[in-house]
Amino acid sequence: MKRRLLTLRYIGTHYHGWQVQPNGITVQETLQNALEQVLGVRPGVTGCSRTDSGVHANQFCCHFDSESAMESDRLIRALNAHLPKDIAVYGCADVPADFHARYSCKGKNYLYQFYNGIYRNPFYEGLAASVYRPLDEALLDEAAKSFLGTHDFSGFCSSGGSAETTVRTVAECSVSRRGELVILSITADGFLYHMVRIIAGTLLYVQQEKIPKDALPDIIRSKERSRAGATAPACGLYLNRVFYE
Amino acid sequence: MKRRLLTLRYIGTHYHGWQVQPNGITVQETLQNALEQVLGVRPGVTGCSRTDSGVHANQFCCHFDSESAMESDRLIRALNAHLPKDIAVYGCADVPADFHARYSCKGKNYLYQFYNGIYRNPFYEGLAASVYRPLDEALLDEAAKSFLGTHDFSGFCSSGGSAETTVRTVAECSVSRRGELVILSITADGFLYHMVRIIAGTLLYVQQEKIPKDALPDIIRSKERSRAGATAPACGLYLNRVFYE
Repeated sequence: MKRRLLTLRYIGTHYHGWQVQPNGITVQETLQNALEQVLGVRPGVTGCSRTDSGVHANQFCCHFDSESAMESDRLIRALNAHLPKDIAVYGCADVPADFHARYSCKGKNYLYQFYNGIYRNPFYEGLAASVYRPLDEALLDEAAKSFLGTHDFSGFCSSGGSAETTVRTVAECSVSRRGELVILSITADGFLYHMVRIIAGTLLYVQQEKIPKDALPDIIRSKERSRAGATAPACGLYLNRVFYE
Repeated sequence: MKRRLLTLRYIGTHYHGWQVQPNGITVQETLQNALEQVLGVRPGVTGCSRTDSGVHANQFCCHFDSESAMESDRLIRALNAHLPKDIAVYGCADVPADFHARYSCKGKNYLYQFYNGIYRNPFYEGLAASVYRPLDEALLDEAAKSFLGTHDFSGFCSSGGSAETTVRTVAECSVSRRGELVILSITADGFLYHMVRIIAGTLLYVQQEKIPKDALPDIIRSKERSRAGATAPACGLYLNRVFYE
């Protein structure tokens, strides 16, 4: 038996997130279907995280166990031939038997992408959250710094999560502009349910002056979900990097 | 009567090009539908060029005449509300009555985009031509320089075009890499039918050593279509800039 770590990219628009659901196709079962077609058996696949419906991934990691000795490059190409166009594998590595895609993960980086042109842009349709009023990336970047460090983020999560603790350490949180895109990048040891989308929505509230930038530390400390911003749409969110030791 | 110039972006994947066709939906008729819904009359719309089925546009220009006095910003937003997600207008300007989207055009810039990663990438599906073997952008850039200047490009066009002359002047022709994308940029006073796609395909032949780089000037001079490369797929091509005086 060999444990392997797969790395994939996907456009989440047409999926009900990663994890198998009773109502709606997920990335996990789509990958399991492809593995079954390639390997002849259907392995369990364990992901690095659950991702929400409609969320994208530049890097998503998952492990599975199999007897197959198929060489990595060949396995990747075979899987990609069986996967739909919006999912593709680009990495496959042997890992120790005690490696776990979720529990061995030391941190993740998410991007939240706003399209900030004046008019609708077809090329970012479903791939960014559109905001047509000008975003001030310097202001947002300054505001984003409030989230740095170790905090109880219970005011920045939706109910329905399964975390034992709501304390997380944010190592990086910044906002920058790339042409008509304004991108929030956030790296932490872990994330609560909807945490990045609520932080993105809270930064929008700062832009709209619904929340004064200086109030953010106090809002975080208050642990009150009602004081943070709205949950920003799933289409702007990308799981971007997954860190293992 | 007022003549207006519209500027639009579109993802061409689901369209049979710009120009109205008997078999298949086109960008032109889709725009005419939206104009009719917004203005109550169906104006004729004249495009800056025909684009092939599946070709994209970062900037496509067209003019139409109408009695409407609707303010530009309002017209753009109304059109975008009626256009499908893969087409959007982002510019609208009043132009003189003798302005013509096609005949007043002094030149165009096209991009041809290759995705050059090792494995399939969902985010470039339909938006770039995939080449999995490494492309040497320095070699291709050097080869691209052969197309600069005024030439009879009859060896670099497909039959079916309507041009009176096959002589064109290429002002810029370069290849550069942006991460996993390798991008051919070409600016000329005009383009023949399939010209950019054949140039892109010919550069691939140079990469594959099917054509020696030094043979390009002679191949251009020969005016023999059979000596150039294959026509590269439509999905990599973008009308990128349209130049008016």
